[in-house]
Amino acid sequence: MTTKNLSPTDRTKLGRIPQRGVYDCETIYQILDEAPYCQLAVSLQGNPVVLPTMHTRIDNKLYIHGAKENRLLNHIAQGAQACISATLLDGLVLAKSGLHHSMNFRSVVIYSTGIEITDPKLKTKALETLVNQIVPQRWNDSRPPTDAELKVTKVIEFSLEEASAKVRTGPPMDDKRDQELPYWSGNIPLKLVWETPVPDATSDGIPLPAYLSRPHESLGKKWQASA
Amino acid sequence: MTTKNLSPTDRTKLGRIPQRGVYDCETIYQILDEAPYCQLAVSLQGNPVVLPTMHTRIDNKLYIHGAKENRLLNHIAQGAQACISATLLDGLVLAKSGLHHSMNFRSVVIYSTGIEITDPKLKTKALETLVNQIVPQRWNDSRPPTDAELKVTKVIEFSLEEASAKVRTGPPMDDKRDQELPYWSGNIPLKLVWETPVPDATSDGIPLPAYLSRPHESLGKKWQASA
Repeated sequence: MTTKNLSPTDRTKLGRIPQRGVYDCETIYQILDEAPYCQLAVSLQGNPVVLPTMHTRIDNKLYIHGAKENRLLNHIAQGAQACISATLLDGLVLAKSGLHHSMNFRSVVIYSTGIEITDPKLKTKALETLVNQIVPQRWNDSRPPTDAELKVTKVIEFSLEEASAKVRTGPPMDDKRDQELPYWSGNIPLKLVWETPVPDATSDGIPLPAYLSRPHESLGKKWQASA
Repeated sequence: MTTKNLSPTDRTKLGRIPQRGVYDCETIYQILDEAPYCQLAVSLQGNPVVLPTMHTRIDNKLYIHGAKENRLLNHIAQGAQACISATLLDGLVLAKSGLHHSMNFRSVVIYSTGIEITDPKLKTKALETLVNQIVPQRWNDSRPPTDAELKVTKVIEFSLEEASAKVRTGPPMDDKRDQELPYWSGNIPLKLVWETPVPDATSDGIPLPAYLSRPHESLGKKWQASA
């Protein structure tokens, strides 16, 4: 496996706690692939707007889609810079000192000017990858988009050249003088699990597909297994 | 219980699918209290920057803290507008049509100019509320901050006056013509659970506190129960 490293820029270089900064593409791509959604920020008339949205990655590009009248995507299609943040919460960190409480997490931040994708084949490919990244094998078990649907769907492609990850793992980092204090300290791992699938009213008599028959399995682990 | 409604502004009014827009404070506050972290966006030299950070709510104010050299918080302390997004992922939505796949979620977006809090009592109160909102009863089982620690910690207070929630629940919304298709459709509820707490090397012989003895309990439900 090739492990390409990105060059940190002024914006992606970590100021504080620089040892948490990660610039290898493998880590950055894995976090993006596991994160079920991201937060997309743009400046509108000089003021920030940030909204949650789904994303997907193909090679060294990230794709975000929306309705054709989506004002954030339109602004980006017209050349506005975007900043995208995707975060996975892995655990709670309980230190002996109140102020040293923290979280274990993996996050990625991307700076990019996006470009609108108009080729229907690539638009469809981005949508297929998005659905399959969240639920492997799902795309082929659903109706593909029509030309008319693709026309009213805007897809923006972002380069992943200016990106970095930040990762915190492990126990709390209390000051030496606090380590004798009588408080329990440590970390609590968290995981996102899926519960039993709930069929809708139109699925009477349709058996649950095998790719959905894994209740209570960790989503993160599922994604890692299917990579 | 009083249910105050915020007045939608041009920025918080939902354009598409307006029935998902929620403006009552009770819903907005509940999402903010349950979300373990948020994404804080500002414009730096006209370009967006968004980063994950922890937050807490006291009444109709939101508090975010960081190191005193934190460039986003400093920018906000100097008067820059912020946009804050907090999202809870509740489930996956699998439609019969590929393009109608979605997620069930509850999210809040806030537009606010923050002000720096310098009163040590209010700073401590914000930190206490933050820790206890994530792990109830924890603050009193940890060392309180010293004056010196408070001095190097920046706390910003945001008004929750210009905020809105967006909520999606329930089954997919397929077009009528797709409802006869043979694909399974429905939703998969997700939950964030905590696994067995892991003591660090300085906690030998310290029993796990009762407030941490609830492995595999849904975090969301825990927060709802403790409200």
